[in-house]
Amino acid sequence: MKGVILREAPGVTVVDLSHGVPAQDVVAARFYLERCHEWFSPGTVHLCVVDPGVGTARAAIAARANGSWFVAPDNGVLDGVLRSDETSEVRRIDLQALHLTPKSRTFHGRDVFAKVAAWLARERVLFEGLGPVHTPVMLDRQEPVLGPSEAKGEVILVDHFGNLITDIPAGSLTPAFTVEIGGRTLRSVGTYGDAEAGECCGLIGSYDTLEVARRDGSAAAELGVGRGAKVRVRRERELPG
Amino acid sequence: MKGVILREAPGVTVVDLSHGVPAQDVVAARFYLERCHEWFSPGTVHLCVVDPGVGTARAAIAARANGSWFVAPDNGVLDGVLRSDETSEVRRIDLQALHLTPKSRTFHGRDVFAKVAAWLARERVLFEGLGPVHTPVMLDRQEPVLGPSEAKGEVILVDHFGNLITDIPAGSLTPAFTVEIGGRTLRSVGTYGDAEAGECCGLIGSYDTLEVARRDGSAAAELGVGRGAKVRVRRERELPG
Amino acid sequence: MKGVILREAPGVTVVDLSHGVPAQDVVAARFYLERCHEWFSPGTVHLCVVDPGVGTARAAIAARANGSWFVAPDNGVLDGVLRSDETSEVRRIDLQALHLTPKSRTFHGRDVFAKVAAWLARERVLFEGLGPVHTPVMLDRQEPVLGPSEAKGEVILVDHFGNLITDIPAGSLTPAFTVEIGGRTLRSVGTYGDAEAGECCGLIGSYDTLEVARRDGSAAAELGVGRGAKVRVRRERELPG
Repeated sequence: MKGVILREAPGVTVVDLSHGVPAQDVVAARFYLERCHEWFSPGTVHLCVVDPGVGTARAAIAARANGSWFVAPDNGVLDGVLRSDETSEVRRIDLQALHLTPKSRTFHGRDVFAKVAAWLARERVLFEGLGPVHTPVMLDRQEPVLGPSEAKGEVILVDHFGNLITDIPAGSLTPAFTVEIGGRTLRSVGTYGDAEAGECCGLIGSYDTLEVARRDGSAAAELGVGRGAKVRVRRERELPG
Repeated sequence: MKGVILREAPGVTVVDLSHGVPAQDVVAARFYLERCHEWFSPGTVHLCVVDPGVGTARAAIAARANGSWFVAPDNGVLDGVLRSDETSEVRRIDLQALHLTPKSRTFHGRDVFAKVAAWLARERVLFEGLGPVHTPVMLDRQEPVLGPSEAKGEVILVDHFGNLITDIPAGSLTPAFTVEIGGRTLRSVGTYGDAEAGECCGLIGSYDTLEVARRDGSAAAELGVGRGAKVRVRRERELPG
Repeated sequence: MKGVILREAPGVTVVDLSHGVPAQDVVAARFYLERCHEWFSPGTVHLCVVDPGVGTARAAIAARANGSWFVAPDNGVLDGVLRSDETSEVRRIDLQALHLTPKSRTFHGRDVFAKVAAWLARERVLFEGLGPVHTPVMLDRQEPVLGPSEAKGEVILVDHFGNLITDIPAGSLTPAFTVEIGGRTLRSVGTYGDAEAGECCGLIGSYDTLEVARRDGSAAAELGVGRGAKVRVRRERELPG
């Protein structure tokens, strides 16, 4: 993919957002993209090819949201980004009109999406010229349940450190809380260094959601849980109405 | 290596082709290079240092093939690229004439090859000026056996998804076939999504060879096989003569 | 972090030094930085965020050493670099004066350090303008013990190949020696290819320290040792006084 991008858009800067998306995990990729894209410059082209349906009838899409561009298969991987900007717009990429004939049925990242991303980055094609306006597929999944005294969600990512990143938003957590996960009840802290040596705890992580961590270690290994594990938060006081 | 490249050729774009070459696996690296180099711009310098013989008498070489440049140890890692262009040319890098005195006996990637690649990228040295014409070492390995009704080969790579990438070329496969691997017989499909949930299958992969995959999972884990596993394809009809 | 760097310093070249630093391992990161920084161009900004104390009272610092810049938490990760240049200088980054208000208490790599590194790279702030001169935290660890006939140290890194990189400097090793590690006694060789097939051996590695390797394999797996393992070298002759 990087070869194609640099061939189509010489000199463009390419960086990897993460090497931590599990294979075929559209939900994890959606989370990374939603939570990280605003740290990049406006106008960045975000190319996101987690694509278990490659080579089937699923569409290829591009989107404009929060001042940046997104290129992806139409499988819900963009739905977090799209929900975050109510003025976002989606186009279906018209392969035929753009003379995009995939060489392979199993790697449209290389044969389709990388080219389109490069063309957008160099303005060799306008967003409006990619194809017709399109209603994208949204993910069909259980969203976190946020009540006045407790919140329920799940582990969306296990990061490089073994931290358990959940989908419970920071806004439903403050000021202090307890976390139930893997049969354990954990207290909340402000940052890793506030925990005791080896202690597992809950905190507001850098994705602005509940994170379960272990000081100087791996919460995933210590608690024996991972992607998809259920988590419940109990607030010590109710949130102000 | 990247530090040296950027010191010798400031502003050059450097990308990694793969993080998936197993340690010391010249055959896997040869395959990646042969199958991927044409997706990069002509004129790209491909630096490939899989080099178990570093610091011994093995030569350092550079090659011109398919309009691009290659810099590598002389251990067969380039032979796929060289076989793909009958007008390719190889030079032995003359370390003494180029004042290349390796600091280390165990990392010529940093001390020799990165410098030469950077110099070629910036035309600070011409290919013809690197040293004398050279007859390169070719790999001594069993090539796939391609017959009219069956083909035999092996697994060359296990990719990030657990897909088993083989050396049986796509041209010997169409239109439909069965695959024998790990004691199992699998049908062929057009792409991952054509298989049933969890089914292992054979298909033409994006390297343009036979690939054995599992829908939404890892074929390597499910079949219990990996790098070097034998694979046999039986065509449902004979190929036209 | 890369998004922030490229937003603050468009067009700057960003490369990863290593993907091999274990989580929270300040000693390993210190070693990489000390041993690798001089291969990069003078003027490079080295951004090193191994930061188990993120969000606590530990300071953020920047340093000038060997003609390059360093940005890191004040936890000893720079002490190898600072020891290597007696004219080095350290400043405490004054977050308030620079209007650096971290969004998160757990990822100052993104919220503080990436910005400062980008500003230094683009000279949007001068080193002297980052804050007051500062006496940095140095690491409190056992340095290798170097005697006339033997040296004792430990394994600092296990690299991608399973090579055991130690902290015993090359200068205390030549010309020939034996290595005791994991209950085994190994001979020294000049490079990997000088060992017998499958043999474990000691050699001077590319970090310019003692390395324990296995030809065509992993010394870590074969010897059953890793990070922190004790190693003793016995010289065959005493070093000249």
